[in-house]
Amino acid sequence: MTKIKTPVIILNVKAYSESMGDKGLALAKACEEVTEESGITTVICPQQFDLGFIAHQTDVPCFAQHIDLKDVGGATGWALPEAAKAAGAAGTLINHAEHRLKLADIDALITRSRALGLTSVLCTNNIQVSAAGAALNPDMIAIEPPELIGTGVPVSKADPDIVTGSLQRVKEINKDVVVLCGAGISTGEDVKAAIELGTAGVLLASGVVKATDPKAVLLDLVSGI
Amino acid sequence: MTKIKTPVIILNVKAYSESMGDKGLALAKACEEVTEESGITTVICPQQFDLGFIAHQTDVPCFAQHIDLKDVGGATGWALPEAAKAAGAAGTLINHAEHRLKLADIDALITRSRALGLTSVLCTNNIQVSAAGAALNPDMIAIEPPELIGTGVPVSKADPDIVTGSLQRVKEINKDVVVLCGAGISTGEDVKAAIELGTAGVLLASGVVKATDPKAVLLDLVSGI
Amino acid sequence: MTKIKTPVIILNVKAYSESMGDKGLALAKACEEVTEESGITTVICPQQFDLGFIAHQTDVPCFAQHIDLKDVGGATGWALPEAAKAAGAAGTLINHAEHRLKLADIDALITRSRALGLTSVLCTNNIQVSAAGAALNPDMIAIEPPELIGTGVPVSKADPDIVTGSLQRVKEINKDVVVLCGAGISTGEDVKAAIELGTAGVLLASGVVKATDPKAVLLDLVSGI
Amino acid sequence: MTKIKTPVIILNVKAYSESMGDKGLALAKACEEVTEESGITTVICPQQFDLGFIAHQTDVPCFAQHIDLKDVGGATGWALPEAAKAAGAAGTLINHAEHRLKLADIDALITRSRALGLTSVLCTNNIQVSAAGAALNPDMIAIEPPELIGTGVPVSKADPDIVTGSLQRVKEINKDVVVLCGAGISTGEDVKAAIELGTAGVLLASGVVKATDPKAVLLDLVSGI
Repeated sequence: MTKIKTPVIILNVKAYSESMGDKGLALAKACEEVTEESGITTVICPQQFDLGFIAHQTDVPCFAQHIDLKDVGGATGWALPEAAKAAGAAGTLINHAEHRLKLADIDALITRSRALGLTSVLCTNNIQVSAAGAALNPDMIAIEPPELIGTGVPVSKADPDIVTGSLQRVKEINKDVVVLCGAGISTGEDVKAAIELGTAGVLLASGVVKATDPKAVLLDLVSGI
Repeated sequence: MTKIKTPVIILNVKAYSESMGDKGLALAKACEEVTEESGITTVICPQQFDLGFIAHQTDVPCFAQHIDLKDVGGATGWALPEAAKAAGAAGTLINHAEHRLKLADIDALITRSRALGLTSVLCTNNIQVSAAGAALNPDMIAIEPPELIGTGVPVSKADPDIVTGSLQRVKEINKDVVVLCGAGISTGEDVKAAIELGTAGVLLASGVVKATDPKAVLLDLVSGI
Repeated sequence: MTKIKTPVIILNVKAYSESMGDKGLALAKACEEVTEESGITTVICPQQFDLGFIAHQTDVPCFAQHIDLKDVGGATGWALPEAAKAAGAAGTLINHAEHRLKLADIDALITRSRALGLTSVLCTNNIQVSAAGAALNPDMIAIEPPELIGTGVPVSKADPDIVTGSLQRVKEINKDVVVLCGAGISTGEDVKAAIELGTAGVLLASGVVKATDPKAVLLDLVSGI
Repeated sequence: MTKIKTPVIILNVKAYSESMGDKGLALAKACEEVTEESGITTVICPQQFDLGFIAHQTDVPCFAQHIDLKDVGGATGWALPEAAKAAGAAGTLINHAEHRLKLADIDALITRSRALGLTSVLCTNNIQVSAAGAALNPDMIAIEPPELIGTGVPVSKADPDIVTGSLQRVKEINKDVVVLCGAGISTGEDVKAAIELGTAGVLLASGVVKATDPKAVLLDLVSGI
């Protein structure tokens, strides 16, 4: 498997106009520079149409934002894990709050990602779903309370108990799973708080994507580690 | 709008292992060469993760295999028409047999594609659905009986009535819509039959993607025009 | 087919707490009484779990709120047209704004409903979707602009052009289709306006379901005819 | 909560023609008689449209085959847990192999079912999904390998390890969850084997629904306990 060194900052660029095409590439370049300058791992999740393009143009690890459980073959317009791999992905988000998946499909996608050497990051919404996710053995779980996503109010401050509660239950069930947190993260201070709660990093989006100077925000974020 | 000159051969590479990543690029290069050599328009529909990569590397028009009706913004892992455009797409399939869409969403996606200058190709499965599609005013309708897809038995021979019936009903309702046909097309003779039935071209996949020599198949296909 | 006499008032009770179980039965009884007293056809669309129960207890025609395109057999928890028929339904809504369906599935469900003798009422959201729907040959089309649903602002006043535009395009494509309108209807005056625009009746929900005296509202509604 | 006494035989009548409307009621009556004669708990899961009708006509506990995660209100054609309760349901299947649900929705539906006093039976497909399910705290988990459903080859013989493995992992994570098994069950011997593996009963469908004499099959099934 592509081993992703932790702590890690995972930047999900979502489907913002500020992250489409060449703008997505510029964000990836910013991640690349910040990793070179800081030594801290950053990962970018490009828009689906941009994954291969960005993976060919940068050295920053690219994760798919989403993969679909379809068989290789006649599956027009679906995003297969094998295709993500062939396009240059090193991993994938699974079950993001904006793209929820069926329980049985999550299980199958985690297994299939592992067979392909793709790092799997399962997104969860509360403590018991994090616990359930741990039983499915993803590489990482990112706990993100949906109500805080995009708010700028960091989960590490607004709801630290959901982070520590998830960490505890996840580790009880499967100690190998790396735990991240997300939702509302936008500063180095937020990252610092997340790390202090015991996580191995953060997953974030708008705080960087919609910033006037994304690289400056990324530099601030890694300073929290 | 990106005007696509007809007659046209549209190659949907689906999610085959033979069309992922660099193999998808090779198929696009073959299309490009065949168009240069023959003067006949070819279009490629790359795998979702490869669209931007292939659009940057070739001059063949790229159509998305599928687009999703989500708002620009927080829409992780969805394939937006705006993102297809930014990645270099000239058009898009809508409602392929392997990725059916809701009626109201098809209507909205056709409208949104037109506003972006993306050529829309609505896929349909029978005469009355083709007629319904015509009322939604896509640029093109590709009639493809699902039971013939991937069989190698061409719709133009197996079920010519569905092609002529669709053509008649579509033109009655909306004379501006260009009609293609698909399913089972793999030879120049199949293309010739499709043109003789009155269509402006074909949509095909496995006949080229899984061929030992895709370029030779493409050359045979354009010879039918 | 169960012929539904027009003009007609179709009451969709949705999933309100005021229409569950015995409360749904009371609404059906109110429809029954109003039809007896006024001679105007009313139809009720019970909650899915209540359809058989209410169909057995009243003489008012019951329409399913929704049916699913699954084969008879191993289809746990899906609502089949054949099951609606066996439970006593006389018809069904298809593609309600709160339960949109795929284009190809709508086509297949209309055909299957007709074969079973179920009256099909296709819900649409704008003029071109109404036109597309006409090509699919349902028994009735109910045009309901989603933005007016539940507002109490009647479509017949807020957007009469969408009603007359739909009527015109539907009749051009398929003169056999009966056209209704819905969204925001709550008084006899609204019904009168809908009839004057050329429709054969209305589809409504909250105006009756959430009323203190549903029968009184129903009596007012039929007075508009 | 409606306490369901174990061991239990849960009959899911699916969407077979043999279980629609009055035929579904006859199956419920057979369950009722068998429980009266044997003292063993049986439960029936009627077709969605029949739930209220059958719950009013029999004393056998009725479980919904499926519930949807929609808010009470404007949710046309969806099957709400509150509506199941109002129609007379004592419980519900969740995530049947033929109606899979999203992970986050399963979590929310289990919580909502408990608040309503509905017994929740979460269906799972393998050991790790059973383990994940246990973390979500349903009342019961029914492990059913999809490849055996409807085959007549009982899971208790074809794949006993999936049953014992699920039991072990479920109990490690949440000892309060009752474990059932299903798929291919059709005789008292199959039930006996399931009980001997440590389960508290079975979930089955076609073995009874499609039998010439459903009551005789039910009597045979309870004889295995």
